[in-house]
Amino acid sequence: MSDPKNSKDSVIRRVQQPTLDELFDGVRACDRAMIGRAITLIESRNPKHQEKAQALLHKLLPFAGGAQRVGISGVPGVGKSTFIEALGTKLTTEDKKVAVLAVDPSSGRTGGSILGDKTRMEKLSADTNAFIRPSPSAGVLGGVARATRETIAVLEAAGFDVVLVETVGTGQSETMVSDMVDFFLVLMLPGAGDELQGIKKGILELADMIALNKSDIFADKIKQATREYKSALHIMRDASPNWHPPVLGCSAITGDGIDGLWETIEKHDRIMTDSGEREARRVQQKLSWLDAHIRDRLLDDFYGNTDVAEVIDTVKSAITNGETTVSHAVTKLLGAYQAGK
Amino acid sequence: MSDPKNSKDSVIRRVQQPTLDELFDGVRACDRAMIGRAITLIESRNPKHQEKAQALLHKLLPFAGGAQRVGISGVPGVGKSTFIEALGTKLTTEDKKVAVLAVDPSSGRTGGSILGDKTRMEKLSADTNAFIRPSPSAGVLGGVARATRETIAVLEAAGFDVVLVETVGTGQSETMVSDMVDFFLVLMLPGAGDELQGIKKGILELADMIALNKSDIFADKIKQATREYKSALHIMRDASPNWHPPVLGCSAITGDGIDGLWETIEKHDRIMTDSGEREARRVQQKLSWLDAHIRDRLLDDFYGNTDVAEVIDTVKSAITNGETTVSHAVTKLLGAYQAGK
Repeated sequence: MSDPKNSKDSVIRRVQQPTLDELFDGVRACDRAMIGRAITLIESRNPKHQEKAQALLHKLLPFAGGAQRVGISGVPGVGKSTFIEALGTKLTTEDKKVAVLAVDPSSGRTGGSILGDKTRMEKLSADTNAFIRPSPSAGVLGGVARATRETIAVLEAAGFDVVLVETVGTGQSETMVSDMVDFFLVLMLPGAGDELQGIKKGILELADMIALNKSDIFADKIKQATREYKSALHIMRDASPNWHPPVLGCSAITGDGIDGLWETIEKHDRIMTDSGEREARRVQQKLSWLDAHIRDRLLDDFYGNTDVAEVIDTVKSAITNGETTVSHAVTKLLGAYQAGK
Repeated sequence: MSDPKNSKDSVIRRVQQPTLDELFDGVRACDRAMIGRAITLIESRNPKHQEKAQALLHKLLPFAGGAQRVGISGVPGVGKSTFIEALGTKLTTEDKKVAVLAVDPSSGRTGGSILGDKTRMEKLSADTNAFIRPSPSAGVLGGVARATRETIAVLEAAGFDVVLVETVGTGQSETMVSDMVDFFLVLMLPGAGDELQGIKKGILELADMIALNKSDIFADKIKQATREYKSALHIMRDASPNWHPPVLGCSAITGDGIDGLWETIEKHDRIMTDSGEREARRVQQKLSWLDAHIRDRLLDDFYGNTDVAEVIDTVKSAITNGETTVSHAVTKLLGAYQAGK
């Protein structure tokens, strides 16, 4: 399956593109070279590629939706790669097919970063039951989100049981990922006291569980940290009437706590599936995605308009200096926009 | 000043509207009948009124910006009116001119609700140093925000020292108000344990201070509640490097703690003014307002388009049922929009 001659790199060299049917059959057969090509097509901004990608997705849609979608967030240093390696390997050992996607809007897609991902997760990247794909290249955040969501559909149609979506710890990418998964896991370090202040805005509200990693190194701090995070979560209103986010310790290095952690994710999945919340959340996610997508397109068109671009700095200065009202500025900018179309 | 013959009600009966200069002079002289008319003009959706309102605001802008803008939030039952009555009366006694605005997007503006506001704050509404204005009538949230922001400018040009903006405890109106004030105060009840779970999403991040009201009734619970709220705030990253939101107890009924609470607000004002943060926050607020305003107008135009309205339900059903991708749906909707213009 991981024959290097068929890998993504060779796509660039080959002129002949696979047909829609070849892509469809390849994805459905879980041929990883074809999956890679399908994702490359989805990520392309070339309108012809986009058209083909959408046609492919339409064919694949009836077969999508079967995976457990789990978002994993945590700042650099928390041990995210080691954690995903440990969790992923555990799952593939149980004969589950696991895909790992990354969402990092700041990353340029280069050979280096692909290499980086493979190096970061050495065992998993050699695992025939696993598929690892780095973040789509930097660009508009909305573009990265679209590509990632559609990639999840491809992977589901290919029969993956679990899709892990990794995100770096920046607010926007976390919100984005939490809005495309069924379960959002936040990795933290069990530092004590002041270190806890580092929790980013809104992250507690996104978390379906907090895992305190490196429990082996921070053994003496884990109790207090657990208590503090529990108290913080206790004070927030739960997003679901059926789930209160737990706080668990684990060590990706020793493997301690990884089993219990996955059991908790499975328990969440059962509860949400049985209560109908999982399906409701997925529908809600798709509809918010529609709204966000339309909003982005309208705003791109507005701010990309040359007549708007010409006056916007002057208008902003006038607002900043208190020379004009915002309402007046809006009228002026919308006037420029209409005239420039 | 509160002569009923000159009050807002009589505006409706009179045909003759004051000129721009009369409004400007009246506002600058802090004539409350003229202030009322200026605000009514600002709230009107009639394009002619809007034009006049914008001209008036342009004349008033150089005189705006002088007030302390304080947002006050809290769910029904927390004692918000009594609190504002107590705080407002304290300030007018110190010869400060205090204006109270309400932001309640759910409220219809009726004689009843005006009466309601006056009844709720009996002492303050009879106070010649105070000016109370109910929420602009229900409608688009963005419209209520615009009117309230512009009303603040009018009140500042009229020489008010403090503008209190009251909001009901719904997430959106709270975010909106926090984005137009210098200080955002959240009123809570010092209930214990499970009651704390009622904290709404994001509210801790907006709060510059939490005041635990009804300390006289909940005397036995205030210590633990203070500790729990402090711990929750401790765990969040502060919005400003110069301010960590304190938790204070108070009783609007007995007046306990109201002085200390205002001292804290004044301290915040000094720190923010000296560090330049207050001005920076105000500039940032105006620029986000510009962005939000433009976004709202573009979205209104899009969703208000008849060709879009015709197909949107079908498109949403197709997404919900997994029959189409969001990207495809967006292309279809934007196509309908362009064709329908």
